[in-house]
Amino acid sequence: MQEILPYKQYIEASLANLNYAKAPIELYEPIRYTLNLGGKRMRPILLLLACEMFGRKKEDAINQALAIEVFHNFTLLHDDIMDQAPLRRNQPTVYKKWNENIAILSGDVMFAESCKLMIKQSSESAEKVMNIFFDAAIEVCEGQQWDMNFENSHTVSVHEYLNMIELKTAALLGAALQIGACIGGANKQQAENLRMFGRKTGVAFQLMDDILDCYGNPALVGKQVGGDIMANKKTYLLIRTLEKASADDRKRLEYLMHSPVSAENKVYEVLELYKYYSVKDEAEAVMHDNYHQAMDYLKKIKTEHLAKLMLQTFAESLMQRSY
Amino acid sequence: MQEILPYKQYIEASLANLNYAKAPIELYEPIRYTLNLGGKRMRPILLLLACEMFGRKKEDAINQALAIEVFHNFTLLHDDIMDQAPLRRNQPTVYKKWNENIAILSGDVMFAESCKLMIKQSSESAEKVMNIFFDAAIEVCEGQQWDMNFENSHTVSVHEYLNMIELKTAALLGAALQIGACIGGANKQQAENLRMFGRKTGVAFQLMDDILDCYGNPALVGKQVGGDIMANKKTYLLIRTLEKASADDRKRLEYLMHSPVSAENKVYEVLELYKYYSVKDEAEAVMHDNYHQAMDYLKKIKTEHLAKLMLQTFAESLMQRSY
Repeated sequence: MQEILPYKQYIEASLANLNYAKAPIELYEPIRYTLNLGGKRMRPILLLLACEMFGRKKEDAINQALAIEVFHNFTLLHDDIMDQAPLRRNQPTVYKKWNENIAILSGDVMFAESCKLMIKQSSESAEKVMNIFFDAAIEVCEGQQWDMNFENSHTVSVHEYLNMIELKTAALLGAALQIGACIGGANKQQAENLRMFGRKTGVAFQLMDDILDCYGNPALVGKQVGGDIMANKKTYLLIRTLEKASADDRKRLEYLMHSPVSAENKVYEVLELYKYYSVKDEAEAVMHDNYHQAMDYLKKIKTEHLAKLMLQTFAESLMQRSY
Repeated sequence: MQEILPYKQYIEASLANLNYAKAPIELYEPIRYTLNLGGKRMRPILLLLACEMFGRKKEDAINQALAIEVFHNFTLLHDDIMDQAPLRRNQPTVYKKWNENIAILSGDVMFAESCKLMIKQSSESAEKVMNIFFDAAIEVCEGQQWDMNFENSHTVSVHEYLNMIELKTAALLGAALQIGACIGGANKQQAENLRMFGRKTGVAFQLMDDILDCYGNPALVGKQVGGDIMANKKTYLLIRTLEKASADDRKRLEYLMHSPVSAENKVYEVLELYKYYSVKDEAEAVMHDNYHQAMDYLKKIKTEHLAKLMLQTFAESLMQRSY
């Protein structure tokens, strides 16, 4: 994926050039801090590639690419309060480093700043772009609400789970690509195909995350195996096991989730149940299905532009993260 | 102010007609609840009047009027978390009735919904309107941050206080009028004059609030006298007294604020200090100054349209709330 490096560098340099007000410092310091934490910059890169694919320059869509990244970071700020997450990219989250009020309010400012970037120099496609953006913003919030609901629910179906990750994760990927396509000059059908490519890739990406958390090589994934199991996170694997399990196994699983079992034993036993019910295979099948659907949508767009190949390689690389 | 009643009814009916998604109910029920709590609907009424003043129909600006009201209510949702306010319009606030996470997230959705309304059918003025809106959104957040900072600061100047209320309260009034003017077809100078009319009126309005809290007729104001004093709220009156007081009086004032004095004694003694330092007169002078500046801006706009007279009457009525 070395080809996308210049795009990432362009995003980083443009983010660093964003000028925020100096005061009140309590509001703007957390914004600078958040945007400096790094990350894959996946969404803005996709947006730039989508724009180029239809013949416009990446410079024509840079403001909208930055908008998507600032918006995404706004959602992380608020999500971290709601999920009480102390760390993000190995650094204290804003609500931990400062406080909740500051995380709420600087998040709100980031949302407004992202809107300002989204409308900057987007000319004829402005209204279309804004509507895609705000619809996705609402979907992301809905996804977060479903995710929170699932934490306290005993009866989540895999269907509901897949809908949740489509809203929470995949909707913004789809919107980034669709917006890039609109600015690039795509017709309606082309932009829609790219949106669907993003949504299907996003679902596959999240399923891969669920799988890697249990079966990834810790040295390559960069975090401890079984974190989701320890936190009782409702992943595809857990939900599907709860669906398939016999009454006894279900009872055992719920005991493991809610009783003071050692972390090591808990992870071991839960993984044994996952194995018994073959849920890893099922998750991989659903993931590959989404991935292939994504590729089919991409293939529908008839162009030989290099950016199309880069989008394909990008999606492939997400599927090849190391076990 | 009977003339504006049809405008208020039009706003209420249009708000009631807004369709929100059914699920997740945790996200959309608080939105319906908040928008049903009522209120003066001052901002959307101003927006409609501003539009009419330049010859367009109020129907042409109804989406943007609703946008301003939904946005305003979003800020209340988040402010109530930050200020830990249990009640709003005598009803439990969203974070109290549900919880903080729901208040954060349904607030975020309201912000996105307000953006969608703001861009709806605004055609040629869309980009201008959106920029005014997002700039005001940022100012409102900055105002809220300064307000929170002031709670923990011993050295707030009246200059800083006036800047804070201009951001927190007056900026959105100004934006509502400027947006209405843009949609109505005003030229740049006319829209700017109307914006300044709104900002000056907003500052006068907030100063009136400060004064009424201490000197209003409880039966007419609808709340207990001295609420701000009991809560140590940094109002114009308190800040100016702290600025003017002798070292001894300042010490006494700080003792009253931070020691377990009975509410009755506290209000009585603080009001005595306000009287001694004539801060009510000063606050009234600054309020009237802002009010007259507001009227001067309105007068600069040459039109005989009835809407102009209604804006004037509206501002007058804000100044005539009962002592």
